[in-house]
Amino acid sequence: MSFHSMWAELLPVGRSSASGGYRRYAWTGADSDCRTWFREQAQARGLAYETDRNGNQWAWLGDPAAGNAVVTGSHLDSVPDGGAFDGPLGVVSAFAALDELRGRGTRFTRPLGIVNFGDEEGARFGLACVGSRLTSGALTAEQAHRLTDADGITLPQAMEAAGHDPDTLGPDPERLARIGAFVELHVEQGRALDLSGDRVGIASAIWPHGRWRFDFRGEANHAGTTRLTDRHDPMLPYAEAVLAARREAQLAGAVATFGKVAVEPNGVNAVPSLVRGWLDSRAADQEGLDAVVAGVEKAAREYAAAHGVDLGVECESFTPVVDFDHALRDELARILGKEADLRVPVLGTGAGHDAGILSGRVPTAMLFVRNPTGVSHSPAEHAAEDDCAAGVHALADVLEGLART
Amino acid sequence: MSFHSMWAELLPVGRSSASGGYRRYAWTGADSDCRTWFREQAQARGLAYETDRNGNQWAWLGDPAAGNAVVTGSHLDSVPDGGAFDGPLGVVSAFAALDELRGRGTRFTRPLGIVNFGDEEGARFGLACVGSRLTSGALTAEQAHRLTDADGITLPQAMEAAGHDPDTLGPDPERLARIGAFVELHVEQGRALDLSGDRVGIASAIWPHGRWRFDFRGEANHAGTTRLTDRHDPMLPYAEAVLAARREAQLAGAVATFGKVAVEPNGVNAVPSLVRGWLDSRAADQEGLDAVVAGVEKAAREYAAAHGVDLGVECESFTPVVDFDHALRDELARILGKEADLRVPVLGTGAGHDAGILSGRVPTAMLFVRNPTGVSHSPAEHAAEDDCAAGVHALADVLEGLART
Repeated sequence: MSFHSMWAELLPVGRSSASGGYRRYAWTGADSDCRTWFREQAQARGLAYETDRNGNQWAWLGDPAAGNAVVTGSHLDSVPDGGAFDGPLGVVSAFAALDELRGRGTRFTRPLGIVNFGDEEGARFGLACVGSRLTSGALTAEQAHRLTDADGITLPQAMEAAGHDPDTLGPDPERLARIGAFVELHVEQGRALDLSGDRVGIASAIWPHGRWRFDFRGEANHAGTTRLTDRHDPMLPYAEAVLAARREAQLAGAVATFGKVAVEPNGVNAVPSLVRGWLDSRAADQEGLDAVVAGVEKAAREYAAAHGVDLGVECESFTPVVDFDHALRDELARILGKEADLRVPVLGTGAGHDAGILSGRVPTAMLFVRNPTGVSHSPAEHAAEDDCAAGVHALADVLEGLART
Repeated sequence: MSFHSMWAELLPVGRSSASGGYRRYAWTGADSDCRTWFREQAQARGLAYETDRNGNQWAWLGDPAAGNAVVTGSHLDSVPDGGAFDGPLGVVSAFAALDELRGRGTRFTRPLGIVNFGDEEGARFGLACVGSRLTSGALTAEQAHRLTDADGITLPQAMEAAGHDPDTLGPDPERLARIGAFVELHVEQGRALDLSGDRVGIASAIWPHGRWRFDFRGEANHAGTTRLTDRHDPMLPYAEAVLAARREAQLAGAVATFGKVAVEPNGVNAVPSLVRGWLDSRAADQEGLDAVVAGVEKAAREYAAAHGVDLGVECESFTPVVDFDHALRDELARILGKEADLRVPVLGTGAGHDAGILSGRVPTAMLFVRNPTGVSHSPAEHAAEDDCAAGVHALADVLEGLART
């Protein structure tokens, strides 16, 4: 089955007709359909198929128990109203690269695996990379059992409802020990390749990033009758924090975003009692990130105090810089450097990935495919067909270069 | 039954143990309990009880068909997590004032009515003063049939489920024609009486007010990877609009509030595609209100354009200034002016009331009772017992002064 046919098969799964975006959330019907598709692709190619204890799917050519396996893949779930490429491009390209190598008649000396990591986006339970975190031990079974979706359904309940035994959740060191290299192909989520004019790039590092919850607590009041001077309106310092985030990120050459907000009571005629805003920030290094967050918090505190509003700031998650394995990165550059017409720049990224989670345990690398607008996590996310083909070709070269040696 | 006992009976009805605030929404169980309480109070006093075609409750002393009736009352429903006083104080004070007049042995030459208007706050169906709007013809039956709550239940369905025939909805000119004067007592929702040191005040006018929906449409994108210069982040001009509203209101001596906001997709790691904010603004006159709204819109448009964000502004509701009947207002001041120790200032208000709706059809006046903090639409809303007693006493004097003549 060609890249094109695989892509066309996945395209309608979990797509919202209202937004045109994808709603493939972990352990829902759309997720289940994606999983069925993966299993069928594995079986159609005569690969050994298995689901691991944490719900990640694997397809094997050769016996993984032999060790030193080369694994590629990504994820099939989506953010709310996400695009078609973030995740699926890496899985579809993995199968397509295997097909290309079979066409070339390549013989492998190492086991070759294709993986679909479960719940990478964290759209349903609020934590990203649950599948790879559990497998690598970065998330314990106890922590996973406490994850709950917006309807109060726990992760184990959702897994069970989807036919997966939740009692087996937990670290899987034997499985990881079999992997000699993991390479994740992913659509770029910025415009670096577009600006440099290249189709494919190699990841250098994932920027350190974190999420901070800003709770501005004021006093609920009648919006029509309360004098301005009697108000403790938390929306005002929230607005200042939003603008400070942009200002500080610009100064530091970083990114900072308030993309989620919750207001109580959220009534048109009520001064809010609470405005809760989430700051997402990432920078090339730790020092830059610290400067942004400290700057935003300082501005927010000053304005909150001026309005008699209480401010609590809590770091909800933090991931330090991920510097991908240098030897593997250099190996990829060497393999891809053989093609005279392909220049493959090395670039950093602000996005988290399963590859980032695994990198602490397994030599890991990433390939990026050009995104002409840089738009991602949106129905408008796109990559040109030619660039996707170049991605498959580069991934095939990488797998051949690594697994034939 | 004393003011105190009536108050204690109503206090637990529809009160959230979580917030301590009230959730007495139209045609719910809590609303039904309030209505039962009203009927029992009427019957316990030997008053003729009736529910009108629009679900408003009436209790009569004397025959309303005689015409030129004096009516007092307010509403028993609440905003989400509202206080105990907004509404109920006017209804409880009405019964208590009648009791006081009976104690004085007052004989009435005009029919006396006590009313509980339905769905004043509009917490469930999004439109305030539904009961009085329908009765006065300001809302048509067709418009009322289209009102829908957050669960998709229409107003007629909700009325029917609560045992009220929705087919009778509509204007009630005969009923209005029988009313010679309507006086609504209400807790003040600002601090004017507190600042002037008075227990009770008379309303001069209700400020013109309106609600405007600001739709900032940008482009959803990945918060970790999208360069600042590639973003069209609608949260930024929204934040500027929030600050502009405060600034413009201050300049105009008005109030302006963004108390409700809805964000799409509202994800921590997503630049929003849409930020929708609702501006509530009110001013002493039309000119001031126009200046505030124009100023906010101008600032919002400038910042939206600078960020490549589209802005749509729509007026969702607008109520022009309500100038209460001057003759009735003067009559109230004359009646209350007889008490040497009571100074009764005349003051404007930014809040809408059933009295404002009726004022176009019936000579209408309002009494305000001091609110020591000005806090309203909040569990912290409060009025001192002494001030409530002064309110009952003033209302009794007014009813006596009007209905004995």
